[in-house]
This record gives sequence, structure tokens and C-alpha cells, in this order.
Amino acid sequence: MISVVILGAGNVATHLYKAFKASDNVVIKQWYNRHLERIRSYSNEVDISDDISQLVEADVYIIAVSDDAIAPLSEQLPFENRFVVHTSGSVSAYDLDKKNRRGVFYPLQTFSKAAKVDFSQVPICLETLRKTDYMPLKRLAICISDITKRVNSDQRAALHLAAVFVNNFTNQLYRVAHEITESQGAEFDLLKPLILETAQKVQDHSPFMSQTGPAKRKDKKTIKKHLKLLDNAQHKEIYKLLTASIQHTHGR
Amino acid sequence: MISVVILGAGNVATHLYKAFKASDNVVIKQWYNRHLERIRSYSNEVDISDDISQLVEADVYIIAVSDDAIAPLSEQLPFENRFVVHTSGSVSAYDLDKKNRRGVFYPLQTFSKAAKVDFSQVPICLETLRKTDYMPLKRLAICISDITKRVNSDQRAALHLAAVFVNNFTNQLYRVAHEITESQGAEFDLLKPLILETAQKVQDHSPFMSQTGPAKRKDKKTIKKHLKLLDNAQHKEIYKLLTASIQHTHGR
Ligand SMILES: NC(=O)c1ccc[n+]([C@@H]2O[C@H](COP(=O)([O-])OP(=O)(O)OC[C@H]3O[C@@H](n4cnc5c(N)ncnc54)[C@H](OP(=O)(O)O)[C@@H]3O)[C@@H](O)[C@H]2O)c1
Ligand SMILES: NC(=O)c1ccc[n+]([C@@H]2O[C@H](COP(=O)([O-])OP(=O)(O)OC[C@H]3O[C@@H](n4cnc5c(N)ncnc54)[C@H](OP(=O)(O)O)[C@@H]3O)[C@@H](O)[C@H]2O)c1
Repeated sequence: MISVVILGAGNVATHLYKAFKASDNVVIKQWYNRHLERIRSYSNEVDISDDISQLVEADVYIIAVSDDAIAPLSEQLPFENRFVVHTSGSVSAYDLDKKNRRGVFYPLQTFSKAAKVDFSQVPICLETLRKTDYMPLKRLAICISDITKRVNSDQRAALHLAAVFVNNFTNQLYRVAHEITESQGAEFDLLKPLILETAQKVQDHSPFMSQTGPAKRKDKKTIKKHLKLLDNAQHKEIYKLLTASIQHTHGR
Repeated sequence: MISVVILGAGNVATHLYKAFKASDNVVIKQWYNRHLERIRSYSNEVDISDDISQLVEADVYIIAVSDDAIAPLSEQLPFENRFVVHTSGSVSAYDLDKKNRRGVFYPLQTFSKAAKVDFSQVPICLETLRKTDYMPLKRLAICISDITKRVNSDQRAALHLAAVFVNNFTNQLYRVAHEITESQGAEFDLLKPLILETAQKVQDHSPFMSQTGPAKRKDKKTIKKHLKLLDNAQHKEIYKLLTASIQHTHGR
């Protein structure tokens, strides 16, 4: 049995709470948040608190608060030499106060309150400053996920940056597509199967092998036609830059 | 019963052949390709031919050949006043020889020989130059797909252009993510659940509502950190441009 205390009540904290709760091998000793009302509805299931001086003892303390709040919150912890991790992709483990043993428990997925998450399919990237803390953290991670991976700080930073490309930037391409279709009264919905298939394809094939289309084919006629169709200057720039990027990847 | 002749033996022609074959309401009268060997393995199931002068009669002729070959092939057709469609997203219906009745049967999906396709979930965009040809084409389309849509030329052009954004350009973002992770010895595979979730999310929510991340939050610290991490100049440009695009979409 591994015991944890969760700190924070946002998207990640809430999904972690549910995943830990569902595991037979984890006991949630306490759930802390600075505003108690956000977790009050769980008070019959778990010990809740908004008083940091009253934190109980546990094997692992998981700080799942906004990036900027991680360091100050870790300083307020009223104990020493316990094991404290945060859940951020971009904050250093060294930002945690050094009076405690430190690590990172970074779930590489996008969370929002509304959407359900199958945590068993969420990769959890693990990092510990002390070698001996790694196995306990790993044991905790495998209680809720089938995909756990030790990473170093550079790798975690690279993954977080890459996640911005495949999530935020990809979603913005969907948005541009939405604007393009709407501008002609065409239905964005018609693109949804293609959006899914594009994501499906790279589950089994590399993005390099999956590439198709006018940029890769160097189909100048179609590229010219497309640039003429785009009346939004920023969309034109995106088209040109990503076409150049594809052609750079796939040689001259 | 609707009768068709398929012309061409590439990705689209082959998937269309299989989808029509599986329908009880379509009979494939003939499959034509300039090189017979590509379809010879089907000769026990269907009448095959490489002789354009020997095309048999059918309700609909579907030209699924490379964009540039559509016009010349349609000129070679040895009959008049029959119903001929092509399958391209970017070629005009007027590029078909006007001796026949003309239309477009554009399946909005990415096809490759290897990958299986559930045609019932492929949106088919329909266009006919004559109003009276529309219903027969629609009847054919609903034999193989649950999603059919009448579009005009501008709408089809917009959909084709938008498809480049959500398919080719998105795939290139996956590729960039692949390069970023590899450069640090991190695993691209860890991003795959996020890639899928990103595509899943816009099935039910608009891309506008789905956006998250440092660009939308205007988190300058993280953006600066990311730009510093990117050593590839083109990746930096993509990061800057898509960040600007997100910030433009989500206001100042
Ligand atoms: N969302 C994702 O997709 C995702 C994915 C992977 C990792 N992460 C990381 O997980 C962490 C939490 O993210 P999130 O999305 O769950 O955030 P969130 O939904 O915005 O929730 C933030 C939480 O932090 C608390 N908080 C903010 N400022 C605080 C302060 N000064 N002192 C104490 N608590 C404070 C908030 O408390 P109140 O409830 O009292 O306001 C809230 O519970 C971040 O490090 C983030 O980078 C997020
Ligand atoms: N692939 C997709 O994802 C996709 C999606 C939607 C629409 N489309 C459209 O569907 C059409 C076919 O695309 P595809 O991907 O199936 O192409 P493909 O796999 O490259 O196959 C092209 C076919 O065209 C034939 N062809 C090429 N030049 C010809 C010529 N001069 N005369 C006669 N036949 C010729 C080829 O004949 P041989 O076999 O003899 O070489 C081959 O059968 C195009 O208009 C494309 O824009 C494609």
C-alpha cells in the first residue's frame, strides 16, 4: 500500500484523485486545497483540508497546482525529508524546496474537468533527484497507468515542448481549417474523420512515412491554387512555412 | 441497382472498388486501368479492361486517376451524354470533357493501399453540373457511406485546402515533435495518446473551445523557455507563427 497526499484541486489533481481512488494499492491520506469549497463534495470519501499546517504523514506528496505556485507551496510545507513531487512538464524538480526529497510525476496528456480520462493510457514521466526515490515513485505510477517512463530534465522539457506542437499547435490548425471551411459555408464536421485518421495513422507509422499531399509531391499547381484561395495573411504564412518544412523533411 | 464503371487502379479506385463490391445495391460493370496488371488479381470477380474503346454501359463512370490525367482520360471516353464523375478535391468538374454529363464524387479522407478504410465513415462530397444528375449520384454515395454532402465548387476547394491543414500540416507537426523528442533521446511514442486525444477532443468540441497551453494563456515565461530550447530555425519559426495565430484567435 502506498499512501499519498494530493495538493491542489485543478484538472490534474482531480483526475489523479479519481485514478488513485480506483486503485487497490493506493490510499489517499488527505486532499489539500487552499480553497476548501472546490473539494468539499469529496469530504465523505477522503480527509480534506485547507490548512497546510495540518498535513498528515504520507509516502508521497503530490503538488498539482499551477506552475508558478509549485515553488512557494513547497516552501510552506511544514515538514522535512519527506518525498514531494510536482506534476508539471516544464518546472524543474529543483524548484521544489530542498528541505524535502524531490521528484516529478508528469502525466503527459491534456486534462480538462469535463472530459473523462482513462488514466491507464496516460504516460507518466518520472524523475527523482535521489536514485532511491525512483522505485517508490514508479510503484505508485504503475498503480494507475500502464505507461510509465523515467526521464531526465532535458527529456521532460523536450516532451513538454513537443506536446505543445502535437496538441496546441495541431488544435490551432484545426481552428484554421474551421475558419477556411466556414468562410465558404462548408461544414467543418466533414473534416472530422480525416482528423481522427491522421492521428490514428501515426499510432502505427512514423510521421515521416505517413506524409502525403501537395507539399510532399511538390505539386506546384495545387500549392499555387491553395495560396490564391487563402485570403488571410497569417493562414498564408502558415501554409508557406509548413509546406517548406515538409519539403525540407522530404528532400528536394 | 446502380451500375458503375471504375477507371483507375490507385488508392482511391481500389478502396472504392471494395466498398462498392460490398454493397448489395451497386454492381460494378467493369474496372478499367491503363495497366492491366494492377487489377489482374480481381479478374475472377469483375470484368477488367485496359482498352478504353471497350468500355461497357453503366449508370456512372468514376474516374479515379491522378489529377492531371482526369481531363485527358475523360476526352478519350468513347461515348457521349453518359454520367462521368471524378474523385478529386481540387480538379474542376468542368475539366471533364463536356461531351458527357459531369460531376464530382470526392471522398474526404486520406487513402493508402495498406491501410483499411471503413468507407461508411468517409464523407463523400457530391457535385453535379446538371441538377437532375444529383439524386442518382447521391443514391450511389449512400450505398457506401453514411456521410454524404452536396457541395459547390468553392466549398469543395475550401474543404480540400482545409484537409491539407488538418492532415498534411498536422502530420508535419507530429514530425517536428518527433525530431524534438529524438534530439533529447526521449520517446516520441509517449506523445501518441496525446495526439489521439487532441483529435478526439474536436470530434465533440470546437477547436476554439479545445485550445489550451502557453500561447492561449499568454504564459511568456514558458514561451521564452520553449524558444530557447528550439535550436532548429524552422521549428522556431513554426513555434512563433502558431503561437501568434493562437493569440490572434483568442484575443489580446
Ligand atoms: N491540465 C493539463 O492538461 C496538465 C497536464 C499535465 C501537467 N499539468 C500540470 O499540472 C499542474 C496543475 O495543472 P492543472 O491543469 O490541474 O491546473 P488548474 O486546473 O488550473 O488548477 C490549478 C490548481 O492550483 C491551485 N493554485 C493556483 N495558485 C495557487 C497558489 N498560489 N497556492 C496554492 N494553490 C494554488 C488552484 O487552487 P484553487 O482551486 O484554490 O484556485 C488549483 O487547484 C501544473 O503544474 C500543470 O503544468 C497540467
Ligand atoms: N489518395 C487520397 O488520399 C485521395 C483522397 C481523395 C481524393 N483523391 C483523388 O483521387 C484521385 C486518385 O488518387 P489516388 O490517390 O488513387 O492516386 P494513385 O494511387 O496515385 O493512382 C493513380 C491512378 O491514376 C492512373 N493514371 C495516372 N496517370 C494516368 C494517365 N495519364 N492515364 C490513365 N491513368 C493514369 C494510374 O494508373 P496506373 O495504375 O496505370 O499507373 C493509377 O491507377 C485523384 O484525383 C486524387 O486527387 C485521393
